[in-house]
Amino acid sequence: MCDLLRINTDRGVMLNDGKSRFSINGKPIYHFVGTSTFSEYTVIHVGCLAKINPLAPLDKVCVLSCGISTGLGATLNVAKPAKGSTVAVFGLGAVGLAAAEGARIAGASRIIGVDLNSNRFEEAKKFGATEFVNPKDYNKPVQEVIAEMTNGGVDRSVECTGNIDAMISAFECVHDGWGVAVLVGVPHKDAVFKTHPMNLLNERTLKGTFFGNYKPRSDLPSVVEKYMSKELEVEKFITHTVPFSEINKAFEYMLRGEGLRCIIRMEE
Amino acid sequence: MCDLLRINTDRGVMLNDGKSRFSINGKPIYHFVGTSTFSEYTVIHVGCLAKINPLAPLDKVCVLSCGISTGLGATLNVAKPAKGSTVAVFGLGAVGLAAAEGARIAGASRIIGVDLNSNRFEEAKKFGATEFVNPKDYNKPVQEVIAEMTNGGVDRSVECTGNIDAMISAFECVHDGWGVAVLVGVPHKDAVFKTHPMNLLNERTLKGTFFGNYKPRSDLPSVVEKYMSKELEVEKFITHTVPFSEINKAFEYMLRGEGLRCIIRMEE
Repeated sequence: MCDLLRINTDRGVMLNDGKSRFSINGKPIYHFVGTSTFSEYTVIHVGCLAKINPLAPLDKVCVLSCGISTGLGATLNVAKPAKGSTVAVFGLGAVGLAAAEGARIAGASRIIGVDLNSNRFEEAKKFGATEFVNPKDYNKPVQEVIAEMTNGGVDRSVECTGNIDAMISAFECVHDGWGVAVLVGVPHKDAVFKTHPMNLLNERTLKGTFFGNYKPRSDLPSVVEKYMSKELEVEKFITHTVPFSEINKAFEYMLRGEGLRCIIRMEE
Repeated sequence: MCDLLRINTDRGVMLNDGKSRFSINGKPIYHFVGTSTFSEYTVIHVGCLAKINPLAPLDKVCVLSCGISTGLGATLNVAKPAKGSTVAVFGLGAVGLAAAEGARIAGASRIIGVDLNSNRFEEAKKFGATEFVNPKDYNKPVQEVIAEMTNGGVDRSVECTGNIDAMISAFECVHDGWGVAVLVGVPHKDAVFKTHPMNLLNERTLKGTFFGNYKPRSDLPSVVEKYMSKELEVEKFITHTVPFSEINKAFEYMLRGEGLRCIIRMEE
């Protein structure tokens, strides 16, 4: 967690001189979260640059740059489920699917996918999910549903929605005595995490993570190597590829929320 | 966290037949939290019984039975501060002093004691506290005061008050990236722990503990051995000894809240 380079969506300029490096028709275009990658060439702070294997296909490994690494790392680096344990994953978008994939790699025996959109369940099986809960199908809190399914709660939960109620459910669905809940989603700025402190006294642990605890500059190259050595399949995370001129289609896919993950291809 | 024997202040009877083993003038006296120890002899569930070194002086090691083990274990078993790290302890009653003692044993370099009662500070030095903060002396939240003292936050904090605001401060005063806050105090039943989830995303960890994560039956004998081998000094935790007939004096000491810890001596 570098103070200097911490993601700052309001900054929009280079640290060195407070200016932007992009413009269109003389009007400045501001930098976005330190990378500004929707261009053939970009200018970024050296601390935001990671050198990866030059043989890695950029049109595939680009998906490792944010959500997938975040979800994967949240499980593998933070939740650390033991082999044979039970894991709940809240939210089955790209981040949640990567979290499930991490649980699968770690050898979890039950991976419970939770999503308000049941259309996402079938595909999530490819990422290791073994059971599914749609909170809309029950008239009691999802943490109670999961506690009943698992004789008191899961060993680990990973929250990948950013929704505050899902965060609270993810925490309250872990087993007391040893359960660990990991919050990944970025919450609304006014959101407040609320729980009865007895839930903590009962020896549960609540952790947050940023970028799955990977340090981008030093750790991202090793995630790319996981792909190169076929330990990690990246292709299954990609459902669509659209050219830059149709970038708004990609946003439509995202807003439709049908679990579609899309690559924006720069045009030749 | 044993489901069967979990502390239940409402039960008041033996599990086996749902009856009490005590009475006075034919009127039942109910069991208290599984031990009922204010008597020369008692009847308890075998799971609540720990066999300790028979040479241990009961009038000293009895203080290890609850608060002291809880505070000590919260630091040594749960917060686990590294040698040279900074630790904040909220509340300098018996539990908090034991938590500070644990930080001292672990080799913390700075141990910041936080209490609303500055009279407790001098004595807390005996338990390793090196600096003190009385939240009443500042007109900003104590977590901000501690962040300023420690360049961003302490490495570990241990909350030993049961006050929900202290719990929140204890969590928010740890450094992001690696800070761990441990909640020990028993909260009011209506208390709600509230924090902005960004505090978690910034890679802090929040943990609760019960009885310092010691398993009473199997671990308490080893805590007694710490005393027998002089690794742990118990005497400094005892400020008063009163006979059973003056037990109410002990409660007065407690309510006065001047950091007094008291032994109730059974009369011959």
